[in-house]
Amino acid sequence: MEYNIKLKIEYDGTNYNGWQSQEKGSTVQDTVEKAIFKLTHEKVRLIGSGRTDSGVHAYGQIANFYTSSSIPAGKFSYALNTKLPKDIVIRESREVDKEFHARFFAKGKKYQYLIYNSIHPSALLRNRTFHVHNELDIRAMKEASTCFLGTHNFEGFMARGSGTKNTVRTIWGISIKQDKEIVQIDISGNGFLYNMVRIIAGTLIDVGEGKFKKHDIGIMDIIESRDRKQAGRTAPPQGLYLIEVYY
Amino acid sequence: MEYNIKLKIEYDGTNYNGWQSQEKGSTVQDTVEKAIFKLTHEKVRLIGSGRTDSGVHAYGQIANFYTSSSIPAGKFSYALNTKLPKDIVIRESREVDKEFHARFFAKGKKYQYLIYNSIHPSALLRNRTFHVHNELDIRAMKEASTCFLGTHNFEGFMARGSGTKNTVRTIWGISIKQDKEIVQIDISGNGFLYNMVRIIAGTLIDVGEGKFKKHDIGIMDIIESRDRKQAGRTAPPQGLYLIEVYY
Repeated sequence: MEYNIKLKIEYDGTNYNGWQSQEKGSTVQDTVEKAIFKLTHEKVRLIGSGRTDSGVHAYGQIANFYTSSSIPAGKFSYALNTKLPKDIVIRESREVDKEFHARFFAKGKKYQYLIYNSIHPSALLRNRTFHVHNELDIRAMKEASTCFLGTHNFEGFMARGSGTKNTVRTIWGISIKQDKEIVQIDISGNGFLYNMVRIIAGTLIDVGEGKFKKHDIGIMDIIESRDRKQAGRTAPPQGLYLIEVYY
Repeated sequence: MEYNIKLKIEYDGTNYNGWQSQEKGSTVQDTVEKAIFKLTHEKVRLIGSGRTDSGVHAYGQIANFYTSSSIPAGKFSYALNTKLPKDIVIRESREVDKEFHARFFAKGKKYQYLIYNSIHPSALLRNRTFHVHNELDIRAMKEASTCFLGTHNFEGFMARGSGTKNTVRTIWGISIKQDKEIVQIDISGNGFLYNMVRIIAGTLIDVGEGKFKKHDIGIMDIIESRDRKQAGRTAPPQGLYLIEVYY
């Protein structure tokens, strides 16, 4: 018998070269595959819902793999956590249909971006947030954020080198909250282009710092330009979290 | 001219052997003293409001030192942050009266203890919380916590080896909040014995796990016994935060 096991994975991306296996450095995918090998002595290929960059975190990355192991599906989480380093935790494991594929079946995703807005950086949140020392105009950011809602061609919010042809995506929701020094951007949609969330976050930070005001450029104009140069900076990886994958 | 400079310090205690200078290992005090030396070429003695153990964090540790440097008091924070590792941040610096002494002048302190209550541990909060996998009875913990309020002899809530004679302390406030997996204990008072907050937190966790129920022991009895063996476990350091020092 072969079983298809679905995992929900939390990780601190600080010490990994992102999710996806690669020649150099340690990745989250490699590390989980090794833990599965230690447990089952099977060399499996772990299928993730998508890549995350080096330094990006996840509360709810989803992945699946096939195994002949007789370990009950629900016990994989406990067993794998004993084999994994402490910065990767399997939060849930269960058996799914043979057809289930973590990437192809994904209907959407939710990301969070955390900004630490204060004159000094944070010692405790240094690898968990992006430090912005200029005071942010949260009201302006909230107003601008609504422009991203709905279906747009996000070509201007994509980093080069991904080879994606269809750059139309639908944003279901975007919200910005402030609690003392922390500014939290939540964004969900049917899919995200390479670096799209980080470029949206960077653009909203630029709005918060008043950078577009001087040039009187609106977010809708930037989106419609489909020009990466019109959008704002790419916010750094340590503020980004993959929260949930929808199926 | 000699100036007395007061610092407000945030640190991630994970990689330090606590606050206080010692023979072996790196401490927060040593590291800040070295940064002051790099900046002023003065070998100063930094006076902290009190010690914190290895692995304990701080948002608002207070310390003072004397300097002849002409650097404006308010600029020390910015200048020191360029010399410090990223897990220590000076949040504020200002000149205070010659007499000010961070330890002797402290009128009280506020601590926070964070518990991660979930079947699996947390990858992202592994060095920021104490993982408790048994479900905690928060209502029982809240009820028990009120027993600590007021002035008591806390001899039973002190670790050996501190040499403190007067073990009477006053707890001004204690609160317990739950937000999803995070259980947050806030406690403030005029002073805390060695490991007192961690033993109070550990005892409350034991209450939450129903450990005292079986033996029908109340918190008031434990306090009045003045016996360390009657109280609960010492909760581990990584959940503890020194939030504020009152003057």
